Amino acid sequence: MRFLTFHANGKEQFGILFDQDSTILNLSLYGQRHQDFSFPATLLEAIKQGDAFLNAISGILETDRDELMPYLIGLKDISLLAPIPTPVKNIFCIGKNYRDHAIEMGSATDIPTEMIVFTKAPTTVIGHLSEIDSHPEVTSQLDYEGELAVVIGKKGKSIPQDEAMEHIFGYTIINDITARDLQEKHKQYFIGKSLDTSCPMGPWIVSRSEIENPEQLSITTKVNGNLRQDSNTEHFIFPIREMISVLSKGMTLEPGDIIATGTPAGVGKGFKPPKFLAKGDKIEVTVEMIGTLTNVVK
Amino acid sequence: MRFLTFHANGKEQFGILFDQDSTILNLSLYGQRHQDFSFPATLLEAIKQGDAFLNAISGILETDRDELMPYLIGLKDISLLAPIPTPVKNIFCIGKNYRDHAIEMGSATDIPTEMIVFTKAPTTVIGHLSEIDSHPEVTSQLDYEGELAVVIGKKGKSIPQDEAMEHIFGYTIINDITARDLQEKHKQYFIGKSLDTSCPMGPWIVSRSEIENPEQLSITTKVNGNLRQDSNTEHFIFPIREMISVLSKGMTLEPGDIIATGTPAGVGKGFKPPKFLAKGDKIEVTVEMIGTLTNVVK
Repeated sequence: MRFLTFHANGKEQFGILFDQDSTILNLSLYGQRHQDFSFPATLLEAIKQGDAFLNAISGILETDRDELMPYLIGLKDISLLAPIPTPVKNIFCIGKNYRDHAIEMGSATDIPTEMIVFTKAPTTVIGHLSEIDSHPEVTSQLDYEGELAVVIGKKGKSIPQDEAMEHIFGYTIINDITARDLQEKHKQYFIGKSLDTSCPMGPWIVSRSEIENPEQLSITTKVNGNLRQDSNTEHFIFPIREMISVLSKGMTLEPGDIIATGTPAGVGKGFKPPKFLAKGDKIEVTVEMIGTLTNVVK
Repeated sequence: MRFLTFHANGKEQFGILFDQDSTILNLSLYGQRHQDFSFPATLLEAIKQGDAFLNAISGILETDRDELMPYLIGLKDISLLAPIPTPVKNIFCIGKNYRDHAIEMGSATDIPTEMIVFTKAPTTVIGHLSEIDSHPEVTSQLDYEGELAVVIGKKGKSIPQDEAMEHIFGYTIINDITARDLQEKHKQYFIGKSLDTSCPMGPWIVSRSEIENPEQLSITTKVNGNLRQDSNTEHFIFPIREMISVLSKGMTLEPGDIIATGTPAGVGKGFKPPKFLAKGDKIEVTVEMIGTLTNVVK
């Protein structure tokens, strides 16, 4: 299933893709009219409900299409928001998780032997097709980083690697927009990673059960149609089970937590001369089995 | 005024200190019984209401004491929680903001010329008198860092330095507990700073109007009664107005955001040999005009 959050009739709602992805089943509306069970108000609440919610959805999908008609809305008739528009904490980001990207950012000595983790503020999050602010007053080195993102579904601490995948609700795409000059100037990455609109996310969350092996997905980033990043998640230095295990060593992971898994080679800073983003640039991050996240720099 | 969040009668409530600090005026209870205006349910919501809330409180405090009697509760009869038990995003932390601390962590070359900012996950937060987990399975170098913390009251972006102080709701104390081995191992500070229970906060928030000059406050940390840190916020490298200005350059600050302003010299790692925390250690961070935040390592 593909879960999405959108804006329609003046408010935030959520649903799932239906009918070859051209139609949405509006679960917010469905929930309002069927109050016989505790229906979540947002996708984040749905994720917190876990299996109970997934079971409820399976039941709904077995309903006659005629009965679902009142809750169907065309994808073209809504504005997508990020699937989790306001995460309850900063987004976890794994730094330099592809060897070739670590090398393009410096040299082979930059390939990490221990996981590097930094965060992006929740105020950075925007959805598919929303505009990225170019922030000309604070940066002249805005860069893209296409990434697979993992959404946590089940709370846990000290999660062993062999149980880690069970804690995943699903997968989405993140473009970890970065102000390279600020990233370098302030030493710790946080400031250069946390400008408003610097975390495009979406277009939706694909449920875990639909992706058998998240470490075998092609990932590409195009800028104005030109292929810049072209890799596969099989090249992760630290696999997803290790991310979840290391992060949860002493730190509780919660439903709705988002882990951006790192970006492959081909970021703007990696070119000589660098190819930073400019106003009007269109960035498309595509991850196999998920879709394409598209945003334009304002 | 001193705002606090506490646990009483099985639920989270908030209030203000009353009568020489031995009594709390339970604002949650007051709000439930006076529904003639939109009373906030939590201190975080109160902070979001801003001046409207502060004006309401001023009105309440002019009420006859007899009428307030039903809402008074002894400080000894409640358990304090952190004033904001679940921040809506990670806590912002300013790294190496006292020269003598930068030097003890390395050398004079570690004194920053640009602000260093990292974050702590919201899951780290605990209140005054709550126990700090020693996390023996993941760290053998647990350390303390006593800090003044600023709580943002008014949303803003690109805030000029001369307007920065108006965005402050109040001040509290944070003990930025740090796993030095993890901080070093993972390069970016986040993991070493985000173990559960590693952000004692409190005991309360003192409103901005009560502290004329937050950069003229003595700050001390004692471990088992021994003075370890003894400084004054006048030694900040980056003053508060600059923290707010730099952080908000391109990133929106929101009500309830918390900025830990950095720690002075005297952390455990600064001693030769280092004096890391051990089970049973009692840490008391005292900031002038605010109070003392006390926690014991479990």
